[in-house]
Amino acid sequence: MNVPAPRVTINDVAARAGVSKGAVSMAFNNRPGVSAATRERIFEVARQLGWTPHQTARSLAGRRVGIVGLAICRPARLLGLEPFYMEFISGIEDVLAGRSCSLLLRLVRDLDEEIALYEEWWRSRTIGGAILVDFHREDPRIAPLRALGLPAVAVGHPSLTGGFPSVWTDDATAASDAVRYLAALGHRRIARVGGPSGLGHSGIRAAAFEATMSELGLDGRRQVSTGFVGEEGARATRSLLLGPERPTAIVYDNDIMAVAGAAVAAEMGLAVPDDVSLLAWDDSQLCRITHPPLSAMSHDVHHFGEEVARALFGVIAGTHKGALQVPTPALTPRGSTGPPRRT
Amino acid sequence: MNVPAPRVTINDVAARAGVSKGAVSMAFNNRPGVSAATRERIFEVARQLGWTPHQTARSLAGRRVGIVGLAICRPARLLGLEPFYMEFISGIEDVLAGRSCSLLLRLVRDLDEEIALYEEWWRSRTIGGAILVDFHREDPRIAPLRALGLPAVAVGHPSLTGGFPSVWTDDATAASDAVRYLAALGHRRIARVGGPSGLGHSGIRAAAFEATMSELGLDGRRQVSTGFVGEEGARATRSLLLGPERPTAIVYDNDIMAVAGAAVAAEMGLAVPDDVSLLAWDDSQLCRITHPPLSAMSHDVHHFGEEVARALFGVIAGTHKGALQVPTPALTPRGSTGPPRRT
Repeated sequence: MNVPAPRVTINDVAARAGVSKGAVSMAFNNRPGVSAATRERIFEVARQLGWTPHQTARSLAGRRVGIVGLAICRPARLLGLEPFYMEFISGIEDVLAGRSCSLLLRLVRDLDEEIALYEEWWRSRTIGGAILVDFHREDPRIAPLRALGLPAVAVGHPSLTGGFPSVWTDDATAASDAVRYLAALGHRRIARVGGPSGLGHSGIRAAAFEATMSELGLDGRRQVSTGFVGEEGARATRSLLLGPERPTAIVYDNDIMAVAGAAVAAEMGLAVPDDVSLLAWDDSQLCRITHPPLSAMSHDVHHFGEEVARALFGVIAGTHKGALQVPTPALTPRGSTGPPRRT
Repeated sequence: MNVPAPRVTINDVAARAGVSKGAVSMAFNNRPGVSAATRERIFEVARQLGWTPHQTARSLAGRRVGIVGLAICRPARLLGLEPFYMEFISGIEDVLAGRSCSLLLRLVRDLDEEIALYEEWWRSRTIGGAILVDFHREDPRIAPLRALGLPAVAVGHPSLTGGFPSVWTDDATAASDAVRYLAALGHRRIARVGGPSGLGHSGIRAAAFEATMSELGLDGRRQVSTGFVGEEGARATRSLLLGPERPTAIVYDNDIMAVAGAAVAAEMGLAVPDDVSLLAWDDSQLCRITHPPLSAMSHDVHHFGEEVARALFGVIAGTHKGALQVPTPALTPRGSTGPPRRT
C-alpha cells in the first residue's frame, strides 16, 4: 500500500465518514465537539484513504528534524538497570549522530503525561519525529498522537501499534522456540519469569509460551510477572525453586533476571544446568561474563535501535509506511542449559 | 586567567578579526553571508578576547531552558553496557522531569566534535545549559566552551574542570579507603583493574592507589587500564591471576568488570573470597544479584545525577558557582572480600 494519494482531500474524508469538514478538522486537532466514536470513525476513514491533516502545508517546514523525541514511561531508577533500553538507545544514537541529529529523552510517569508531552514537543516545533515504545493492548496513545499528525515509529507488533508505521521482532516465535528447545533437551517442568503482564510484548510471549507448552502436552501455567528488575527475578526464581513441583528449566524475559536467577541457584546449592537450566533473553554482555555463561534468546538490540531510527527518517521522508520486522531472537546455547538430571 | 573582560565589545572583535560588526553578528547568529573560514576566525578572536554576543541582553531570553544538553564521548555500543552512565542519566532525568525539562543526548566521536556541537546547540538557542562529563587532564573543551558563555556544570574534580562550576566525588579518598580495607584484612598483593588512563578520575584513583600502597610498604604497580568493559575486566583478571605473584585481592573501577572477574575466578577454580577477594566500584544492582554478592565502593549514582541536574539549574539561575561535593563512595563489605587464605 505504498501508493501515494495526493488527490485525497479533507472533503473525501468528510464524505466517506458522513460528517462535515469541520468535524474532521476538530477530530484531528483534538478539539471537543465530536464524540469519541465519531473521532474514531474519522481516523479510520483517514487511515483507509491515506489522508493526514495539512499534508503538505504542515509538513516539516520550520521544524527541527535535527531532534527526535523519545518518552519512556518507566521509573527513572529502573531505566538505569535495564540493559535492553540502554543498548536500544545506543543504537538509535549511532544512526542519529551520523545525521547530526540528537535524541530528546524524557521519562514520564504515565501515558497521559506522555501524550501531553508529545503534543507540546510537536506543536512547539521542538521535534521532527518521535519513537513510541512499550505498547499496551488498546494503547491510549494511538488516537491522540495520530490525530496530532506526529511522524512517529512505533516499536512493537503491528497488532498493538494501531496503524503507526512500526518496527517489531517476532516475540511469539522466539518464545515458542525457547520452549521447544528446552522440551527437546528432556525438560517437562518449564517455567517462565516474564515482564509486566500489561505490556504488549510480554503478553505475546506469555501466550506463545502457554500455547507451545500445551501443544507439547505440558503445563504452561508456571509463569510469573515481574517489573524486569534483578531483585524481582531473584524472588520469582526462589519461589519457583521452592515450590512443590520444582521446574527443571526457567526462561527469563531479560538478562539481568537470569543473572539473578543463577545466583539464587548457587545460593540454594543447585547446579546449573544439572539441577536447573536457565535461559536468558536479549543477550547483552552480561550473559557472556557469568560462569557458566548464560544461554540466551539472542538478538542485536543495538541494531534494533538503529533500524528504528532509520525507519523514523523514512517516515519523516514519507518512504516508510508499513511494518518492518527485525530478526527474531535466536537461541544461543551456552553453559546454562542442558538435559535435566535423571531422578 | 579568570579575569572577566567586561569592556570588550563587538567592535574589538570586528577590528581584531578584520571584518565588519555585521559579519561578527552574522557569524554568531549562524546566518549565511560569511565564509566558513571567516566565521572560524571570528570565533577564534572572540575566544581570545573572551567576548560572547549580547552577553546580558541575550542571556537566557528566548532560549529553551526546557532543554539541557549532554554530549558523551564514548562509543555507542559501550554506553549501553556501563551501568554507571545509565543510572547517572536516570538521576538527571528525575530532576529534569520534575521541572518539565528534557535531556538532549548526543554521542560524539571526539572532543572537537563535542565542542562544535555545543557551539551549535548554544548559538541556535536549542539548549539552556549543558552537563560536561569525562574530563581529561588539560581538557581541550574548557577554553572554547567558557568563551562561548555556555551555562554548564562540569562533572569532575575541580582540578580538572578549569573554572566551570563542578560536581565531584572524592575518588582519591575512596581509592585509598579500598586499599586500607584490603590491607587490614591481611592482603599484601593487591591489584587494581582501572578505567582508561587518560580519564581524569581514573588517573586520580590510580595515583591514590599507588600512594596508599606505598605508604603501607606495599607494591602499588599491579594496575591494568581498561575501557570499562566486562570482557576487558575478564581479560585483565585472567592475566593478573595467571601471573607469577598472583594477587590475593583485586579492586575494580566499575561493577561489570568485577562481575566478570568473579566469573574468571570460578572458571579457574579459585574460591571467592578465600583464594581471591574482589571489590567492585559504584555498586549498582549487579553487585547484589551475584553469588556471592560483591563487596563494593558504594555510592548513589542516581543521586549524583540528581545533584548535577540541580546544580545546572543553579548555574542557569546564577546561584551555583563553585564546586559541590557529593558523598564519597563508601565501603560496603559483602561476600566477595575476606582475609587471604594462609599459605
